[in-house]
Amino acid sequence: MSIARPAVPPQPSRRGAIDPFYVMEVMKAAAARAAAGGDVIHMEVGQPSTPAPQAAIKAAVAAAQREPLGYTLALGIPELRAAIARHYRDYYGLDVPMERIVVTTGSSAGFQLAFLSAFDAGDMVALGEPAYPAYRNILKALDLVPAMIVTELETRFQPTPAQIAAQAPQARGVLVASPANPTGTMLGEPEMRALVDDCAAHGRWLIVDEIYHGITYGGRAQSVLALTDQAIVINSFSKYFSMTGWRLGWMVVPEALLRPIECLTQNFYISAPGISQVAGVAALSAYDELEANVARYAKNREILLNDLPQAGFDRLAPADGAFYLYADISRFTNDAAAFCQRMLAETGIAATPGFDFDRGRGHYFMRFSFAGATDRMIEAAKRLKAWGK
Amino acid sequence: MSIARPAVPPQPSRRGAIDPFYVMEVMKAAAARAAAGGDVIHMEVGQPSTPAPQAAIKAAVAAAQREPLGYTLALGIPELRAAIARHYRDYYGLDVPMERIVVTTGSSAGFQLAFLSAFDAGDMVALGEPAYPAYRNILKALDLVPAMIVTELETRFQPTPAQIAAQAPQARGVLVASPANPTGTMLGEPEMRALVDDCAAHGRWLIVDEIYHGITYGGRAQSVLALTDQAIVINSFSKYFSMTGWRLGWMVVPEALLRPIECLTQNFYISAPGISQVAGVAALSAYDELEANVARYAKNREILLNDLPQAGFDRLAPADGAFYLYADISRFTNDAAAFCQRMLAETGIAATPGFDFDRGRGHYFMRFSFAGATDRMIEAAKRLKAWGK
Repeated sequence: MSIARPAVPPQPSRRGAIDPFYVMEVMKAAAARAAAGGDVIHMEVGQPSTPAPQAAIKAAVAAAQREPLGYTLALGIPELRAAIARHYRDYYGLDVPMERIVVTTGSSAGFQLAFLSAFDAGDMVALGEPAYPAYRNILKALDLVPAMIVTELETRFQPTPAQIAAQAPQARGVLVASPANPTGTMLGEPEMRALVDDCAAHGRWLIVDEIYHGITYGGRAQSVLALTDQAIVINSFSKYFSMTGWRLGWMVVPEALLRPIECLTQNFYISAPGISQVAGVAALSAYDELEANVARYAKNREILLNDLPQAGFDRLAPADGAFYLYADISRFTNDAAAFCQRMLAETGIAATPGFDFDRGRGHYFMRFSFAGATDRMIEAAKRLKAWGK
Repeated sequence: MSIARPAVPPQPSRRGAIDPFYVMEVMKAAAARAAAGGDVIHMEVGQPSTPAPQAAIKAAVAAAQREPLGYTLALGIPELRAAIARHYRDYYGLDVPMERIVVTTGSSAGFQLAFLSAFDAGDMVALGEPAYPAYRNILKALDLVPAMIVTELETRFQPTPAQIAAQAPQARGVLVASPANPTGTMLGEPEMRALVDDCAAHGRWLIVDEIYHGITYGGRAQSVLALTDQAIVINSFSKYFSMTGWRLGWMVVPEALLRPIECLTQNFYISAPGISQVAGVAALSAYDELEANVARYAKNREILLNDLPQAGFDRLAPADGAFYLYADISRFTNDAAAFCQRMLAETGIAATPGFDFDRGRGHYFMRFSFAGATDRMIEAAKRLKAWGK
């Protein structure tokens, strides 16, 4: 059998040359340590350690045994869109018509659909730094221009209209997350309203990532939908609903984007996983179990906020929500990756260097995730204090 | 509460203005007829009527009850990649290293990952027409230029190197499907080898959609991987494995694209659904059940190939595989959409007008899917003969 080899081999694309998640490297190192018999405390992974709510699992099992589980309607099964609309009523006191709700294959699909429907190649989108790295990487791969606004502790690491005006006046869109990853910080209502008004005044799309809603420590987060029906809201079943691997999320979109997004999602995804959609309906009535998870996160956060400073990690972003503590470690190192590697080797604690989230200052920061079990957090705090950094 | 409304509202993007699947309109009309109490024979839907194999369902149920089902490794769980490598050995007699296998969220994700990793904005990709409409639509939304090669019955509706040289000499890539949708036609080995050699000679990426492998009527399809390790192969659990709604597929990629695709899939998808990946492993040893499905498709095909000509549908593409018959209906109509609408109203049979697959000649074609139950196919043939078109 002859194997043809190209005389002039084609090359990978330039736009496909995006960054990996460096957290994956940490996960590999942690897995190698565990495989070699070492004990690992996982504080690198941005996902709940709990499974989906029991009601969701039960619904998924019943559906698998009962239904053929073929493609669903592109925008999602009506039961799930209606249940999400109910969630806005019950949880937020907001009236969101189910027609504007789009079920997605995780928030990942939500970002792609938002970017493709709202922006053309070459358009600039402003977002704060540090940020979830996929924002920047997806934008770049889709030939959009991420304008990274360097944010400061004084504005809770969130971008402001003044910064956007100064650093990215030609932006066609603004993307914010509240609570944010990696900092956990939230935009207050005045700050969110300022962004809404600024985007309206400049004809910019405002995209708000609300994926960490539900996991907050100073009262419930309000959705940007309370302020405007023109924002693109991204949410997911991965965090509060504890269903990362089910790849299920949703968007609420302005009327003008509904039809483009319907066509895009038909072509790019066909539909979100059927079994996950059935599970999602049930998850939306499992608040008791989910609030118990949040209570555990709150306890973990309290432990770490108390103990990390004693271990020398005393410059922490004010984590209003999510399950992360973002630590300024410039007093220890100018190479967060090497620091995290050493911490893993010497204490068995895996955490993420800041470089994933901030290409400029990330070498001086690291992120602890406290989504794990409370006894592991207690053990982590003990080891870090003994480590004596 | 004040609702901000933009003074200068932002607009949807131009590239997001892609075509819908018109088959969805047929599905809506068929659903409306069924809801009004009418009987509908579904020959419009391109998916098996059967559920996932029993072993796959059992594995999914066990996993849902046992595992937290978090994110998996971006390229897929090692068990599934190994099982797919075994499939190439057992089914094709080919040695494909599991390192080159990428688990995807359906073939939809495979196409996006292939296009983003291989092509930059503005690059031209040649493909035959008629074709699965998402090819063209995804290419356009990603700022690529689909060059539609008008194919003819004489070449089994597949594009040839001569056509590519004449119509798209600057193409940076070629995309073919074998068996194809909507025609069911396959590329013979000499024809596939000619495309492989032509792409090698011109430094083009060759992308081969093998999603209908397993569903063939004249012996097994051979993979393009028997001819080259430089092609990008897309496959899926949706058709032969009868798992559409599980959103699970895979790619086999050349070495040079592996790392770009790993980074792209981390950022765009994180991972394929965990429960589906577990089910996929089990599906890969359920050949007996799957072959029974194929036997049913073969029987359905035989019935329709015998009876459709008697009903006047006598110009059919030679369906070597898949579960479609693509009919030239120019003797009846120059408006396939109106014809399909009338057929649904007068016979209760839903089928797809050709316009989805061929923007030029589609008004003279329609596609029958015979993925349904055999007794429904018998009934459909009876009604069409009585309809007397």
